[in-house]
Amino acid sequence: MSQNIYDNDDFFAGYSRLRRSVEGLSGAAEWPVLRDWLGDVRGAHVLDLGCGFGWACRWAREAGAAEVTGIDLSENMLARAREMTPDSAVRYVLGDLETAEIAPGAWDVIYSSLALHYIADLAGLFARAHAGLRQGGRLVFSVEHPIFTAPTNPGWLEQDGRKVWPVDGYLSEGPRSTNWLAPGVIKQHRGIGTYVSLLLAAGFRLEHLVEWGPSPEQIADNPVWSIERDRPPFLLVSASLSP
Amino acid sequence: MSQNIYDNDDFFAGYSRLRRSVEGLSGAAEWPVLRDWLGDVRGAHVLDLGCGFGWACRWAREAGAAEVTGIDLSENMLARAREMTPDSAVRYVLGDLETAEIAPGAWDVIYSSLALHYIADLAGLFARAHAGLRQGGRLVFSVEHPIFTAPTNPGWLEQDGRKVWPVDGYLSEGPRSTNWLAPGVIKQHRGIGTYVSLLLAAGFRLEHLVEWGPSPEQIADNPVWSIERDRPPFLLVSASLSP
Repeated sequence: MSQNIYDNDDFFAGYSRLRRSVEGLSGAAEWPVLRDWLGDVRGAHVLDLGCGFGWACRWAREAGAAEVTGIDLSENMLARAREMTPDSAVRYVLGDLETAEIAPGAWDVIYSSLALHYIADLAGLFARAHAGLRQGGRLVFSVEHPIFTAPTNPGWLEQDGRKVWPVDGYLSEGPRSTNWLAPGVIKQHRGIGTYVSLLLAAGFRLEHLVEWGPSPEQIADNPVWSIERDRPPFLLVSASLSP
Repeated sequence: MSQNIYDNDDFFAGYSRLRRSVEGLSGAAEWPVLRDWLGDVRGAHVLDLGCGFGWACRWAREAGAAEVTGIDLSENMLARAREMTPDSAVRYVLGDLETAEIAPGAWDVIYSSLALHYIADLAGLFARAHAGLRQGGRLVFSVEHPIFTAPTNPGWLEQDGRKVWPVDGYLSEGPRSTNWLAPGVIKQHRGIGTYVSLLLAAGFRLEHLVEWGPSPEQIADNPVWSIERDRPPFLLVSASLSP
């Protein structure tokens, strides 16, 4: 059973104020890369693992998806998602990704934004996702980058007047407790090698892997983001059924 | 034209004293993983890019390879490799990997140990390697891990009594000048995402990707190695021809 931090009042209040919560996909700077990989979803059956407020579910439906299902473990988030998506072709389902059933052979696209780093049994989830995809289907996801999740103390240090990110424990995979919006948020740290190995072991073929940082244009709009190029915040992956 | 630091007298003297130079493959702790990926090379045509003293070339020949060619830009290293490998089926060729010709469709295995992080035009090298492989062939290589090559000051820092590795510039790819065995050794820093993207763009299929650190058994034998689990020193990759 995953920690349900999103139904913690303080966390939910903080999360609701994040730019990506207020503005939706246009407030998520990594979204253009993921959208390109999602491609043409007209007529597609789309599953969103950890759908939150349902921004991507709505995007998929507006882009022509035939049917969209979002799964999330937060009642708070699903309530808002349903309120914002009055569309009978979009379903929101309460579920824990550790164990949630994924209908076999039912999906053209399985998407997940910044949720899989909460999952302890990622091998199990990838196996269910692989079985859930139809021929030609793909899994597109983002997670926090392992450089970001590894440290005992995840915060910038000063060295010779520059900021450096203090990596330790990179190969010591497992839970990390951090204070992000609320104390004691549990994330599962794993390396890029492990994400890739688990995907390949589940039968996926790797199509794209990007260590995301803001573009020069995005930094021009938000100069404080330039530090994110010193250690990438997100890992973005697209994988398809073999061969 | 790559920097030929291996023919710098100080560098060569230092390099020659490294455990992996003295003991060969048994002194290279990551070798067992690469050897597993190389698999059965009986009857195979094997190319080693940056062969150094030729340890892997000799291994391949002793493991039954039909023909082995090693390419290196260091006359010093090739002289010693030739001296240690009196075998007409093993050839050593002077060449710069930036431009070295790779005979098309001639190779079952292309191998490279800790050499590709010196190469500026890696896309070009991957394209030549892809063209050089026969059907069923594979490219197996190791490089210094990007967490290792990224920092402006690549050395451990103290934080709260622990050692941390000070990452900056991760997404700023390009040359890094370090003082390793000799001052001003130039390496090309690139992220894991870039290694993967260049492989996929060249037409490879990713088979394995491991962020290597010492095993518990290796640490028991060499306790000082435990720090290497805090930030992996090497990235190991195996790729095959698509599909």
